Amino acid sequence: MFRTQTCGELRLKDVDKTVTLSGWVQRTRKMGGMTFVDIRDRYGVTQLVFNQEINPTLCNEANKLGREYVIQVTGIVKERSNKNFHIPTGEIEIIVSELKVLHSSDIPPFTIEDDTDGGDDLRMQYRYLDLRRNCVRQNLELRHKMAFEIRRYLDEQNFLEVETPILIKSTPEGARDFIVPSRMNPGQFYALPQSPQTLKQLLMVSGFDRYFQIAKCFRDEDLRADRQPEFTQVDCEMSFVEQEDILQIFEGLMKHLFYYIKGIDMKEPFPRMLWSDAMKYYGSDKPDIRFGMRFVELKDLTEGRGFSVFDSAPYVAGICAEGCATYTRKQLDGLTDFVKRPQIGAKGLVYVRCEARGSYKSSVDKFYSQEDLKMWAKRFDAKEGDLLLILCGDKAKTQKALGELRLEMGNRLGLRNKDVYAPLWVIDFPMFEWDDETNRFYAMHHPFTSPKSEDVPLLETDPGKVRANAYDMVINGVELGGGSIRIHDSQLQDKMFKILGFTEEQAQEQFGFLMNAFKYGAPPHGGLAFGLDRMVSMFAGLDSIRDCIAFPKNNSGKDTMLDAPSAIDSFQLEELQLKLEPKAKN
Amino acid sequence: MFRTQTCGELRLKDVDKTVTLSGWVQRTRKMGGMTFVDIRDRYGVTQLVFNQEINPTLCNEANKLGREYVIQVTGIVKERSNKNFHIPTGEIEIIVSELKVLHSSDIPPFTIEDDTDGGDDLRMQYRYLDLRRNCVRQNLELRHKMAFEIRRYLDEQNFLEVETPILIKSTPEGARDFIVPSRMNPGQFYALPQSPQTLKQLLMVSGFDRYFQIAKCFRDEDLRADRQPEFTQVDCEMSFVEQEDILQIFEGLMKHLFYYIKGIDMKEPFPRMLWSDAMKYYGSDKPDIRFGMRFVELKDLTEGRGFSVFDSAPYVAGICAEGCATYTRKQLDGLTDFVKRPQIGAKGLVYVRCEARGSYKSSVDKFYSQEDLKMWAKRFDAKEGDLLLILCGDKAKTQKALGELRLEMGNRLGLRNKDVYAPLWVIDFPMFEWDDETNRFYAMHHPFTSPKSEDVPLLETDPGKVRANAYDMVINGVELGGGSIRIHDSQLQDKMFKILGFTEEQAQEQFGFLMNAFKYGAPPHGGLAFGLDRMVSMFAGLDSIRDCIAFPKNNSGKDTMLDAPSAIDSFQLEELQLKLEPKAKN
Repeated sequence: MFRTQTCGELRLKDVDKTVTLSGWVQRTRKMGGMTFVDIRDRYGVTQLVFNQEINPTLCNEANKLGREYVIQVTGIVKERSNKNFHIPTGEIEIIVSELKVLHSSDIPPFTIEDDTDGGDDLRMQYRYLDLRRNCVRQNLELRHKMAFEIRRYLDEQNFLEVETPILIKSTPEGARDFIVPSRMNPGQFYALPQSPQTLKQLLMVSGFDRYFQIAKCFRDEDLRADRQPEFTQVDCEMSFVEQEDILQIFEGLMKHLFYYIKGIDMKEPFPRMLWSDAMKYYGSDKPDIRFGMRFVELKDLTEGRGFSVFDSAPYVAGICAEGCATYTRKQLDGLTDFVKRPQIGAKGLVYVRCEARGSYKSSVDKFYSQEDLKMWAKRFDAKEGDLLLILCGDKAKTQKALGELRLEMGNRLGLRNKDVYAPLWVIDFPMFEWDDETNRFYAMHHPFTSPKSEDVPLLETDPGKVRANAYDMVINGVELGGGSIRIHDSQLQDKMFKILGFTEEQAQEQFGFLMNAFKYGAPPHGGLAFGLDRMVSMFAGLDSIRDCIAFPKNNSGKDTMLDAPSAIDSFQLEELQLKLEPKAKN
Repeated sequence: MFRTQTCGELRLKDVDKTVTLSGWVQRTRKMGGMTFVDIRDRYGVTQLVFNQEINPTLCNEANKLGREYVIQVTGIVKERSNKNFHIPTGEIEIIVSELKVLHSSDIPPFTIEDDTDGGDDLRMQYRYLDLRRNCVRQNLELRHKMAFEIRRYLDEQNFLEVETPILIKSTPEGARDFIVPSRMNPGQFYALPQSPQTLKQLLMVSGFDRYFQIAKCFRDEDLRADRQPEFTQVDCEMSFVEQEDILQIFEGLMKHLFYYIKGIDMKEPFPRMLWSDAMKYYGSDKPDIRFGMRFVELKDLTEGRGFSVFDSAPYVAGICAEGCATYTRKQLDGLTDFVKRPQIGAKGLVYVRCEARGSYKSSVDKFYSQEDLKMWAKRFDAKEGDLLLILCGDKAKTQKALGELRLEMGNRLGLRNKDVYAPLWVIDFPMFEWDDETNRFYAMHHPFTSPKSEDVPLLETDPGKVRANAYDMVINGVELGGGSIRIHDSQLQDKMFKILGFTEEQAQEQFGFLMNAFKYGAPPHGGLAFGLDRMVSMFAGLDSIRDCIAFPKNNSGKDTMLDAPSAIDSFQLEELQLKLEPKAKN
């Protein structure tokens, strides 16, 4: 037997017991004829004691132990004189009588500590050592617990988890599909699913009524900072429901998680915000409502004073940063640089300091009187000591930039506490997004999303104004999931495909199997999908999803530990009747 | 609101309630001025009543409903005069006052009944309709429930479910890997995992201690009757354990499933059988021990009587079929034909009828006296009325053939009751299998399997005799899972690679990342994996795994519903810098 207890389990009540532990050497230190070894496993750390005087041979062996050696020890539990109340086993230690080295260890390339000296690349290459670190392992323990609680809640709600296939057919968004050549069917390819969307809709046609799956999804696209080529979705679909039913069930799921994972009892219903309001007041479809600082529009108040920058802009709006009137020139220049970054794209920043005794100091004093600025301040509901930050320009772009500035000010003012959770449903998303480049509409969600019934007439006249029965769950400015009520009427679906520029043949080729299935009695249905990686990283308080994934890939889609992707044997390609054909370099 | 109740929920206590139901039209029938419609959803079937006299308009609408129409009805629950006690809702019916067709349906290509008129191919092509059938849906409900209970048990046992990646590196058994070209890294390929074997061993190196995952695995190989290119494993690994610990934990898992899924309390420990005994007495490494009929060897008793068929055979053995002495000539010829089938491969069958008053009648009466046959019968412990069935030839092949004959006789004698479960651990598998074709040893399990410590010396002298710390769980002749204690000593691992014919470079290239990981302190570890598809199909009493998979593929690896695999756009190949190169046909 390798152990009688784990390294996290012994307490004062176990004193005088003879125990056997196995684990890794966290550290060793010598002190006055004694050698202390901390032995670590998944469950904790326990102090081992070797006494040079009592058992010199054993103590000498202990002195030879290196970091990360795997050892097995037997000894007697004793109360510590010098207790460590920071760890659960800190009141006891083990006087070791037997020591066995189960496996030695080379010196690890970085320290196995929460505060490691290993850089990102090194940690990824030796991910198996990185995973030994408490802080990383805990993220995966949290992930396990969250997935388990998600399943428990959905099972209680009568959802069935159904596994859908990973080897499917290349989909309309084919450009992002990973493809898989078939040896049995040379020249033919499977595709890995970007999501089980059409399959879960088929399950609704099959009468499964309430489906979910914690499903691997795949996208072969350029990876932004926080994307992975394979990611995990909590994918859900329900039949005979309206939007309200779906919001209720999944608000319930989130409350269940907050309660059982974080011990937070979120009694209040989650607020709901129209997408149009989210854009208008926060410049984002995923507003962080842990703090206010809502946008205030000023266009009407700024006109006709000769400030051509504002006069020529279709949109002028700002935010009020409480208590920031004392910002220095340098701080304000810093904010100006921030909004002028290419990814934010504002041309400049106008500020107004609300100073003592109702006086104002602004970067546009030349154009606007104290009376003008007072009017602005009034609309902002600004108090003495506040700072107004104003942007102008094209409406959509400026809203986005102002949204970024708002988040930045939220950070600077400490308004984005990671221990505060502000959930929100954003509803009534637009049906379509217009793309200037290709000069056509794209489905904002996907082509199966149902328009709001009162907006159906607009499909003919003004598609850009049509709102969808689509919704996102946002917490602290992070979109955790979203979904929609689906179209289940084939005429409406045909109209939708037409607006999206599909010919009848294209629609049939790409979605034929789903459209055919609908012919045999499709129930009204809808659903949503959560990003599990994002949910876990939010609950763990992480900035990136990477550390809640056991073996993540880097920004080039590479697993440097496994060395994947990599070249393969030519016989493998031959069998698949494929040939490499490198592009000529430009 | 689409429904106030489901179609499986109303009972006598609900009489006089006004309810709304939604579902599919299972069937309609007219009877004396009334129209009865059975409405179906996942939860059950409820009878709707329309009265021609009271509401002719509504009744006429009901008469127009086709099979599989999706409808919504509102009405009052009433007690039925003609009760149907076969279904839970059979005591009530709904007097309908409102009817809405939510979706019409074309006539389905086969009937949506347990006993459907649809053939296999048609049902696969319209799998979404096939899934509407009770008997198919119930298999997936069972699968959900089993997966849930597996997770519940393992969570209670401190196992963490860790998702390992689907996009990994091509492995040693590369010939069976599905490969995935990378757009970001042209000319390079991921592979889909045949199992998470090496990744779970890395997690042990990481100190995860108890890992599991219900994981998709992939094999691009010719599909035998009951294989799928993607399949699901319950994959498990533990650290600081010996074989006994693993057998205990997973015997516990199986008992948990029998208890919570089938209501069967399996108190007794599962029997264990040496692999060598399984081969000797059952001719199979997965014996069905619901019945005895163990092999009896006869070689010594048959020699020297001039029957050259037996005399020249290295192995003569048979089984005793109780009460079959009355088998007719035709029945015996049938059995002879059975054993002579190419997939069974025996040359012929010798029988001995144990008849009344201690007399014997055999197909070899010419060579063997009544006294000889009496000796045989005694060794079989045969009684009057029994039938001995004897094969001879090469030992391994004959054992296999006799094993098949034993199962066939088990079927004929009704000894293989699907409601009886006879679990078994088969232990002490051989380490290696010799392959005559390639003239080398192969790992019977995989190259990381640890040999039994007492057999380590044989590695040098007689590798074929080395037994492994490997075990399979077998129930009713089906191997549900298996695993091993792994090697965690790198010298032993090197020796293993050498025996398996790897050069040092090959071993490093293929398993380098795992061997390197072991250098940093690998704990003793071992594990196993169950086939979830097989487990579910056994619990469902199915003959094939296909019907417990939502969207299975056929024997050519095709999903005929999705039409996958299929040709892809040439731009997709170009982006991947690949080109089709069809082989010239021979």
